[in-house]
Parts: sequence; C-alpha cells; structure tokens
Amino acid sequence: MSTSITHQRLAELVGGQLSQGDPEGLVTGLNSISEAGPGDVTFLGNDRYLGALRDTRATAVLVAPDFAESLENIALIRVDNPTLAFSSVIRHFGPPKREFHPGVHPTAVVSNSARFDPERVSIGPCAVIEDDVVIGDGTIIHAGVFIGHGSRLGSDCILHANCTVKDRTQMGDRVVIHSGSAIGTDGFGYEFIKGHHQKIEQVGIVQIDDDVEIGSCTTIDRARFGRTWIGKGTKIDNLVQIAHNVVIGQHSVIVSQVGISGSTKIGNYVTIAGQVGIAGHLEIGNQVTLLAKTGVTKSILEPGAYTGFPARPLMEGRRMLSAPAKIPEMLERIKTLEKKLAELEKKEQAPV
Amino acid sequence: MSTSITHQRLAELVGGQLSQGDPEGLVTGLNSISEAGPGDVTFLGNDRYLGALRDTRATAVLVAPDFAESLENIALIRVDNPTLAFSSVIRHFGPPKREFHPGVHPTAVVSNSARFDPERVSIGPCAVIEDDVVIGDGTIIHAGVFIGHGSRLGSDCILHANCTVKDRTQMGDRVVIHSGSAIGTDGFGYEFIKGHHQKIEQVGIVQIDDDVEIGSCTTIDRARFGRTWIGKGTKIDNLVQIAHNVVIGQHSVIVSQVGISGSTKIGNYVTIAGQVGIAGHLEIGNQVTLLAKTGVTKSILEPGAYTGFPARPLMEGRRMLSAPAKIPEMLERIKTLEKKLAELEKKEQAPV
Amino acid sequence: MSTSITHQRLAELVGGQLSQGDPEGLVTGLNSISEAGPGDVTFLGNDRYLGALRDTRATAVLVAPDFAESLENIALIRVDNPTLAFSSVIRHFGPPKREFHPGVHPTAVVSNSARFDPERVSIGPCAVIEDDVVIGDGTIIHAGVFIGHGSRLGSDCILHANCTVKDRTQMGDRVVIHSGSAIGTDGFGYEFIKGHHQKIEQVGIVQIDDDVEIGSCTTIDRARFGRTWIGKGTKIDNLVQIAHNVVIGQHSVIVSQVGISGSTKIGNYVTIAGQVGIAGHLEIGNQVTLLAKTGVTKSILEPGAYTGFPARPLMEGRRMLSAPAKIPEMLERIKTLEKKLAELEKKEQAPV
Repeated sequence: MSTSITHQRLAELVGGQLSQGDPEGLVTGLNSISEAGPGDVTFLGNDRYLGALRDTRATAVLVAPDFAESLENIALIRVDNPTLAFSSVIRHFGPPKREFHPGVHPTAVVSNSARFDPERVSIGPCAVIEDDVVIGDGTIIHAGVFIGHGSRLGSDCILHANCTVKDRTQMGDRVVIHSGSAIGTDGFGYEFIKGHHQKIEQVGIVQIDDDVEIGSCTTIDRARFGRTWIGKGTKIDNLVQIAHNVVIGQHSVIVSQVGISGSTKIGNYVTIAGQVGIAGHLEIGNQVTLLAKTGVTKSILEPGAYTGFPARPLMEGRRMLSAPAKIPEMLERIKTLEKKLAELEKKEQAPV
Repeated sequence: MSTSITHQRLAELVGGQLSQGDPEGLVTGLNSISEAGPGDVTFLGNDRYLGALRDTRATAVLVAPDFAESLENIALIRVDNPTLAFSSVIRHFGPPKREFHPGVHPTAVVSNSARFDPERVSIGPCAVIEDDVVIGDGTIIHAGVFIGHGSRLGSDCILHANCTVKDRTQMGDRVVIHSGSAIGTDGFGYEFIKGHHQKIEQVGIVQIDDDVEIGSCTTIDRARFGRTWIGKGTKIDNLVQIAHNVVIGQHSVIVSQVGISGSTKIGNYVTIAGQVGIAGHLEIGNQVTLLAKTGVTKSILEPGAYTGFPARPLMEGRRMLSAPAKIPEMLERIKTLEKKLAELEKKEQAPV
Repeated sequence: MSTSITHQRLAELVGGQLSQGDPEGLVTGLNSISEAGPGDVTFLGNDRYLGALRDTRATAVLVAPDFAESLENIALIRVDNPTLAFSSVIRHFGPPKREFHPGVHPTAVVSNSARFDPERVSIGPCAVIEDDVVIGDGTIIHAGVFIGHGSRLGSDCILHANCTVKDRTQMGDRVVIHSGSAIGTDGFGYEFIKGHHQKIEQVGIVQIDDDVEIGSCTTIDRARFGRTWIGKGTKIDNLVQIAHNVVIGQHSVIVSQVGISGSTKIGNYVTIAGQVGIAGHLEIGNQVTLLAKTGVTKSILEPGAYTGFPARPLMEGRRMLSAPAKIPEMLERIKTLEKKLAELEKKEQAPV
C-alpha cells in the first residue's frame, strides 16, 4: 500500500505546515511511531509517545502546532489535530476503498416478499432475508447475515459477515453492525413459578437509529414489549450486552464488555468505559462518564465522571479505591497510641 | 399489532378485577408505563415506577390487589401478579406466533446419516447437519446453524440463526439456543512444556438437559473428557462463559457476562448476577445467590446471598464495599488523639 | 468409546509404573475422579481431589511418583505428570480423530482468485472465500466460515464453523480459531467533532503468528493502521476482547472475558486471568501474571503476579482486597482510645 509523496505535498494534503525537513523529501508509507521505518510518516497523537518519537525511524511526523521538542533527521509537519489529520494520510496510502457491487448473490436466500431495489442493494453469499424485510438503497448485507421477517433497514447500512438481526428490528440510515453480533434476540425474562422459571414472552423490538455503529459479538435483546432503543449517533464496541427495554440516547459511546441490565435508561453524550456493569431499572443522565469496571447500582443524574463499585463521583471514587492502602499505617498509629496511653494511665495510678 | 378490547374483557382476560374505570372503555394496544399512550394498557411490576405511573398517558394499568395510590383518568385492573398477568395481554395484542413450517430448506446441507422425521422437523436455509445427528420431532433449526456429527437434539428445541453446536453435544427436549452462541467448543486446556503451551485434547462433550435456554453469543466448552453439564430448567443469558467440565444444577439462573472457570460445580436454584467471576475447581451450593460483579475464589456451600471480591455474605460484603468511605474520618480522629496525647505527655513531664 | 486394556499395558501406555493392583486387571473406560465408575481409569491432577479420590469408584488411577496416600481396591499407576499422561489414555479410549477430507464443498462460495491446492485443503459447506485469499496445505475451513479478501492462512490451520476472518488478515501455520469469533473487524476509533463521533478509518490488519489458538466468540480488531499482532504460541480463550493495535508477545495465555484496550503492548509468557481489564496505551512486561478481575491502569514492567483494582503486586494487592475487613475493629479501638483519653484529661483538669 504505497504511493510516494513529498513532505511539502503531504503537508498540504493534511492542511498543515512543514516546519522542518526537505520539502522535496519523499514519504512512501505510514505506520505507528514504534513500527515506522525509513520512508514512513507517523503522528504524535498522545504525549505518552514523546519518548518513542525520539527513537522513531520514521522520515516524517505530524505534530501539534505548539510542539516544542527539537528532533533531528525527521520532517515535522504541524497540524491542528494530528490524530484526525492522519486519516487523510491513511486515505492516501491505505488500501483502495472497495467499490460497491449491487445485486443479490445467487446463493443468498431472499423471500419474495422482501422489498428493495436489487440494483441499489448488495446481498452477499448465503445471506438469508426473510419475509417482508425492507432494505434501503446503498445498503450492503455481507455473507452469512440473517435478517428476520418484518425488519426494516434504512439506506447505506452495512451488515458485516455472519451477524444476525432477528425479526421486526427497525434500523435507520448508515447503521453499521459488525460480525458475530446478535440483534433482537429474546430478552432474559422469566417468572419463578412452582420451582420453575417460566419464560415471559418477549414480543417487543429493537430500534436502532441513524449513524449507530455496533461492534462484533455484541448482543442487543428485543424489548419484552415496546422497544429496546439505541439513539442516533451512538457507538457501541465489541462484546457489549444490552438487555431488553434498555434505552440509550444520542451520541453516546459504550466500550467493550459493558453490560446494561433491563429497562435502564442511558442519556445523551454518555461515555461508558470497558467492563462497566449497570443494574436494571436505573437512569444514567446526559454527559455522565463511567470509568472502566465501574459498578452502578443507583441512578446517576449529575453530569460528570464516576468510578468504583458502588459508583461514586471521580475524586471520591478514586479515594475509595486507594483508601485501603492507608490501613496498615493507621493500625501502627493506633497501636502506638494504645501503648502511650497505657503508660500515662500507669503513671496516673502511681502515688505522687 | 392491535385488536381492541374493553376494560371489562381485559380484566377477565388477565383474571383480575376492574376496580376503577369504564367497563366499556376500549384498550387498543400495550406499552411500558413511560412509553404508553392513549388507548394503551400498561402494568406496575415494580414500585420504582409509581412516579412514572402518575404521569403515564396509558388508558389502563394492571396493579397488585393491594395497590393503594389514587390515580385519576385511568382504568385500574387489580391482579395477583401484574408482571406475569401482562403476558396474556401481550399474547392478545402481540404479533401472531409464527406457525411451524416442517421440512428441510433446499439450501440446507444435511448428512444422509442424520436421523429425523422431515415432516416433523424444520431446518432452515444454509443450516449444516453433519453425520449421525439425531433430531427430535418439533425441533426448529434456523438459518446458518451448524450441528456437528453425533449430536442428539430432543423434541421441540429451537436453535436460532447462526448458532453453532459442535460434535457429540447431547440435548434434551425444549432446549433453546440463541444466535451466535458456540456450544461444545474445545476447553481451554494446555500443559506448559519446554516453553510451549501444549494443547490437552478435549474429547468430552456438552450435555444440556430439558428446558434449558441459552442466550446469544454465549460459550459452553466441551469437557476435557466426561461432560460439561447444564441441568434441567437452568436459564443462561448472553455472553456467558462456561468452561470445560463445569456442572450446573437444575433451575439455576446465570445472568449476562458471567464467567465460570473449569470444573466448578454449581448447585440447584442458584442465581448468578451479571459479570460475576468464579474460579476453577470450586463448589457453589444450592440456593446460593451471587450479586453482580462478585468474584468467587473459595467454595460457597451455605445458601444465601454473597457479594464483593473476594465474595462474602451479603451484609458483611456490603460493609466491605462501603468501609473505605470511613477512612478519611478515622484518620482525622487518630490525628486528634495523637495531638491530645502529646499535650498530656508534656504536662506529665512538666515539674509539678 | 471403549477399548479395554490391562493395568500393566495401561502403565506402559502412559510411561509409568503399576505400583498397586492386578497387572491383568481390565480398564474399559475413563472419567473424572467423581464421575468414574467400575472399569474406569482416572487421574489425580490436583491435590484438591484427594478427598474425592478416596471415594472414587474408579478401577485405576494415575498418580504422581511421590503419591503417599494408601488407597484400597484401586490400581495405582505412578507417572511423572498424571494430567499430561492422561492425554494418551484419552487418545486410547477417546473418539477416533476424524480423518482429513480434502476438497471444496459444492455449496462453498470460493473466489476464482483464491489460491490453494484443492486436494490439500478442506473447505466446508456454505463457507465463503473472497478474492485473493491464500490458503496453505492441510488447512481446514469449516462450514459457514467467512474469509475476507486478501487474507493469507498458513498450513494446518483449523477455522471452526461460523467464525469470521475479515479482509487482509495474516495467519501463520497451525493457527486455530473457534466458532463465532470475529477477527479483523474495525477498531473502535472515533473523533468527537461538532457533537458527533466521526469514524476514524481502520485500514490496518490483524497478524496471527504460528501456533496461536483463539477461542469462541472472541473479538480481535484490525489496527487503525499497521497491525494488531498476536505472537507465536499465544493461547486466547473465549469472549476475549483485543482492541486495535494491541500487540501480544509469544507464548502468553489470555483467559476468558479479558479486555485489552487499544495500543497496549503485552510481553512474552504473560498470563492474564479471567475478566481482567487493561487500559489503553500501556505496556505489560514479560512473565507478568495478572490475577482474575484485576484492573490495570498503569504499565507493569516487573515480572511477577499482580491483583486488585488498581493492580498491585500480589501480596500488597491481597492486603488491599482484605484490608477493609479490619475497619470495624479499628473503629472500636479508636472509640476506646477516645474514651480513656477523655477520662485522663478530666483527671488532669481536676485540682491536685
């Protein structure tokens, strides 16, 4: 994946300034700071990597406008957001976008009652589309995908190989679902009757609004009734569990291995870090951030960051997590106090 | 999904009493308290929702017999178990159950040595059934399901789209497995020899007894030898890990993202909440409940609830989780004690 | 699964010594200590099971050379590593290894540009092989597997039913991937711009070196650019999340439900126990062991075992986890001190 470009043209490509290095020097590829070699351009997206940058073998690097280090033998391109700017570098050197191939693969199994324009939709090998499914233009359904009866997919969605969408799921436009995920499966609902767990029917649906992306092997259960609802622009990582009747607002971010229990409501612009667990029937307000591994047992309505189990505001939660470290020293001080006090008491009893 | 019904007939349908509202008033649909609109019936399954109930736009609500709130402009139907009773409402308004379509889809790949009655079994598109598989009557195998050689499925099982059942798995009747799950994959067993992890063959099986339901993207590994065994009536949620040679008793409930390590034995009527982890070679007795995120490192034989990491009986475990909050105040008190004591000591040394 | 064998021949089979029992006694099967019955051979791999061994109904048992217990009515076979030695017993009694069936199933969908020797590769029903895929001899691709364009698989790999390998993934020899896993899906990368999460293209790859085994429903994201890299001989369990640009060294072991965040670097001979979470952009050095549920927020370079959240060296971490138990007693002692001190102070103020 290589199309060489000069430092000068690279600076123009990313909308930055070449502040050091030969304008005619050639860049032939790209890589991370530590994996880059001669000819590669890299970027400093995180000061953590300053040390690594000093040792990089890269030929050029994108840095922030206020980058103050002095580095030798490397072309410096200053740009507002090096991480984002690097996307255009990736587009330049990266693999060509695969063009869209409309049509239905002969091995796909598509119901006659499914409605879509076969010249504007792409359905891959061994995909299965059940009755009354509606698919918008520009949507790509890859190999082995299952779409249950009565589901509606908007335009320009991408369903990656071997994901499963159960019946009556409703999707907006530009929804992306990655491989292995299961959307619209039954919620986990039982009533305990005479020593048996009797299944409570789950007849609701999953609704996924525009611009939602869902990672791989993530599970989103259908509502018991009504809907499990993922709001516009929300991004969900891999191996996330979203239980029945959960409602997630808009533009929230849910990182890998998070579990959200039934009927919990998550607001807008919420960030939930990895392995967080949230109990059922709670509310998480707008702009709340939950740090990794947090366990939430009560509703959180105040915006801000929270951590720990049970969850507490960031500073308090951090103290809680580190407090036990103080205990050995506290025990020492208590012992000393007890000794001294005993001596004082002895003196007291002693006749003057 | 709407077939209107009067308040009176609805009360009869759920076996309850209409204690407020016009018997001839019409209900045209159903929804949750917060999502319900005019014409909808809802239910109060959890007092958490009393507040929401006061603001609901629902036309009717199922409540417990002892419901004491006074609500206006809503029909009240009193019934013993509103949550459960609502199931018959769902059956009334919900989508029609899809009828059973027996037969083998032409794109399914079925071994000649597989044994089942093609007029009593349903096998979907692109499903793969290997040699010597036995399938009971009334069982439905959906699209893209894989059943490995020598597996036996009982009657009236449902295997949802794109789940995988490896060779020699044994299933009872009415077993349900949801999409994306992998049953009977190799256990995670290696011996470390000369700097390499050498695979220990996993030649055992998975046995799943009657009435077990397994969620989506859940993994149950085959035994090293003998069997990994899920007892009758046990229900398992999504994204659960059950390692090789684990034995789970009857009518237990295992919530999402739980991990159970190799050879651990779980009893009957056990409840394991979300994100719990249990170490290997342990025993969890009957009627034990493990709260969310609990980490179990020792066997637990006493019935009752446990929480924390390491796991402790509920009250003790809760104290453990909250105890660190007391530390700042304890430090203050220790400091004060030290100051006062120092003063006392000074006085002591002072000449009388 | 039974082919009877005498105690003497069994001892020879496992390379051990028959130190008790009739050399001509017959063994007809195998099982775990607790599940074994008459005719079965079992093994003592863990002293935890000594109690169970006294009650076992097995006919013979493999024990360590220094086994000191006296047991009656059971044949004792002493061997260096009973756990490992039992593998040859399993091979003797276990199901026959299925022979390799080369060829491409007629329902598989294979691109004309894919390169492999159809007489040396096995491709199952409904598998999909895209353009320019290269497959080494002896590799088995089971039913429903998807291999994206430009991927390279080495020799003697096994891809189990319904796993997904996205485009341009690079695999060495003898790589095993279990069912439901998704390899090479997009990394979870967005930039937050004007209230929206804008996707950062993920154009890198996943590289999996020789002898790596990956469990079921595990997700490994492709790199943003460059590669997400799993080193030679590393073994990964089920439901593990490995984010974009993670690098894992050689011969490491990653247990179920572990999450490793973006760009983190794991060394060689590292062991990561179940449900551990590791933040992004960190480094975990060689021979580090992370105990179950550990939360890692800073790099760990010193070899050794760590536990807790935040992670600490084993002994310190254990103290941290248990320290809160001391708090109630500490509070008592502080109260007593305060009482006694108050009394002393009263006496002090009292006129002499």
